Amino acid sequence: LEYAEVLLGKGGGETDKQVYRFEDKGGRDVAMRFDLTVPFARYIAGHLNELSLPFRRYHIGKVFRGENTQRGRFREFVQCDFDIVGADSLSADFEILQLISESFRALNVPRVLVRVSHRGIFNRMLARVAPELEDPTEVLRAVDKLPKIGRDRVLALLSERMSPKAAEAVLSFIEGQGSPEENISAMEDLSGGPASDSGRLRGIMRLAERIGLSDSIEVDPSITRGLDYYTGVVFETFLTDLPDIGSVCSGGRYNDLAALYSKQQIPGVGASIGLDRLVAALEELGSTEDAGAASEVLVFCLDEELMPEYHALARAFRRKGLSAEVYPEGRKLGAQFSYAEKLGIPVGAIFGPEEAKSRLVNVKNLRTRESFDGLDWEAAAQRAIALRD
Amino acid sequence: LEYAEVLLGKGGGETDKQVYRFEDKGGRDVAMRFDLTVPFARYIAGHLNELSLPFRRYHIGKVFRGENTQRGRFREFVQCDFDIVGADSLSADFEILQLISESFRALNVPRVLVRVSHRGIFNRMLARVAPELEDPTEVLRAVDKLPKIGRDRVLALLSERMSPKAAEAVLSFIEGQGSPEENISAMEDLSGGPASDSGRLRGIMRLAERIGLSDSIEVDPSITRGLDYYTGVVFETFLTDLPDIGSVCSGGRYNDLAALYSKQQIPGVGASIGLDRLVAALEELGSTEDAGAASEVLVFCLDEELMPEYHALARAFRRKGLSAEVYPEGRKLGAQFSYAEKLGIPVGAIFGPEEAKSRLVNVKNLRTRESFDGLDWEAAAQRAIALRD
Repeated sequence: LEYAEVLLGKGGGETDKQVYRFEDKGGRDVAMRFDLTVPFARYIAGHLNELSLPFRRYHIGKVFRGENTQRGRFREFVQCDFDIVGADSLSADFEILQLISESFRALNVPRVLVRVSHRGIFNRMLARVAPELEDPTEVLRAVDKLPKIGRDRVLALLSERMSPKAAEAVLSFIEGQGSPEENISAMEDLSGGPASDSGRLRGIMRLAERIGLSDSIEVDPSITRGLDYYTGVVFETFLTDLPDIGSVCSGGRYNDLAALYSKQQIPGVGASIGLDRLVAALEELGSTEDAGAASEVLVFCLDEELMPEYHALARAFRRKGLSAEVYPEGRKLGAQFSYAEKLGIPVGAIFGPEEAKSRLVNVKNLRTRESFDGLDWEAAAQRAIALRD
Repeated sequence: LEYAEVLLGKGGGETDKQVYRFEDKGGRDVAMRFDLTVPFARYIAGHLNELSLPFRRYHIGKVFRGENTQRGRFREFVQCDFDIVGADSLSADFEILQLISESFRALNVPRVLVRVSHRGIFNRMLARVAPELEDPTEVLRAVDKLPKIGRDRVLALLSERMSPKAAEAVLSFIEGQGSPEENISAMEDLSGGPASDSGRLRGIMRLAERIGLSDSIEVDPSITRGLDYYTGVVFETFLTDLPDIGSVCSGGRYNDLAALYSKQQIPGVGASIGLDRLVAALEELGSTEDAGAASEVLVFCLDEELMPEYHALARAFRRKGLSAEVYPEGRKLGAQFSYAEKLGIPVGAIFGPEEAKSRLVNVKNLRTRESFDGLDWEAAAQRAIALRD
């Protein structure tokens, strides 16, 4: 929960409309965060003296947007952010792209493509083809809708704000479909020649090649991002096998964001993985599996009077590194076996009134129902370890 | 964010007053959760068919209460919950208490005491001494304030609702200060004799003894918990060295909670660690330390033209299991050394234009400034591992 003034006007008109805003009981005008980047900028501005720059942060948390829900799009969802502030450099930009690429690799997400562009080149092009335009925000937003609404409707939207010729120029700029170098050159041609912005893009692709990531990063001039705060590179990430679900990780450079809360200008670059959308996509692709969180040993409850022994036995298993749980009441054994089977618990420990006298345990392989009887507690744990592995 | 009707009236008048509630842009009456238990009950009621009972859950998340902030008490804070639903049994109650005890042990929190009581015995006592009382909620709340406002003011609060004699009886019930068995017996005497509720408490202490936890769990008849939904055991957890900060982990049994959202009655027991309060307490006790999240190797940036090599070098270190970062721009070496020192990065890798020709790296012990020059990348990684360890 943030003061509304911290959030409003920071992401652009679209996010202002989506923000959950209300007055709390103390009369404060408050709002729920719509992303993790804006509160992070507020944090950076307030804690600059305590931080060593460059500062890298990682943050997983919920964000809230009052929009219409659809496939992969929720009102309450979890973002996973990573940012580097305090350096406006090629290296920092590249590190974020590398982190995206390596994260998806670590998650075993197949066929991921990060599409990169640069707001600077886009703005230069726009200033050339439509110099009369005062605020590029609506143009950025129209271009951002290209995959959703198609060429003709984007052309119509653009023509509301500029000449048809200028609108055609914007479209031919964003439709580059060549190699990275061809795309960068074409963008330069339409925006007045090489400059530091196009040099940054070239540097990123050179780094990607050196680090072996050029297969998963490409230059795509149509990437502009809807949010107002980006000032440099911008990027979106698509699953090759499910492009329709939209970007699963987006971000860019925001060199002016902290200046909204502090006199200092602090450059930053970062990205957000939309975890819920990613999970929805992976489920649709059938590439998730239930990792399970079942215990390795179930201590059956044959007699509630023996509960202290059951807990002592579970503790003995845990001390050997096994995860163990006690069935918490004296239900019929059938119900207990069926519970273990549903959860996939591989090992059972049976200890009834007879066993209590001898202090010996029966260990059961719950997959095969094979039983190993009359073990002391140490031997029972060793047998359970063997059955688990 | 929940529908307001899910949350309101579930925790008692106190929490209703604290809830952040508003109308969203779709005209829905919504509210932010004040704990994780009530939304969990809503979840259980809605997903009963998919779950195998007994079901254990663990959940860490933010909760929101519009109350006055003070030491260890925040409006937005993080709770860590663990619950077992589907079993109303001694074993489940004990498992939660054991989990509290073991969690604090795993966190190296010194001297923790869990105080346990049972709503059932308290209610039986109340029905005896003040049979005219219709709703025990206000009495529970008055008793809950004993450590904060003292005996006399609790007596005054109680006397508003019952005879002075009854109020004295309630106070003598909650003031038991003996051994667990003495306290349980005294509670039974004042509530009409032994029953399943006092038997449950006795069973818990018997289990605690068998598992070696009787030093950290005690019976305290003054524990009642302010929340409405508890029906059985209730408990709070105090730091012996800082009792004033209040309970750092509270909970109890709630056998009727899910029935509010479903026709079925599903018994549950659980507890919440208040992470922010716990951290505040540990900071006050001086028993936190900064674990740090610094990299193990800093690749210095001597020449921005060599950035691709710096990232390749960092990747080579990472492949050997070292965490490595590249200084993201070509600042003065002094600034880079001072950054490494502030963050406590132990190893530096130096690779300038000269080294780029030979492909050999200089590895520096940043604590002693000792340098190991002219290493190939494999040897550099081995040296870095030796310096880190």
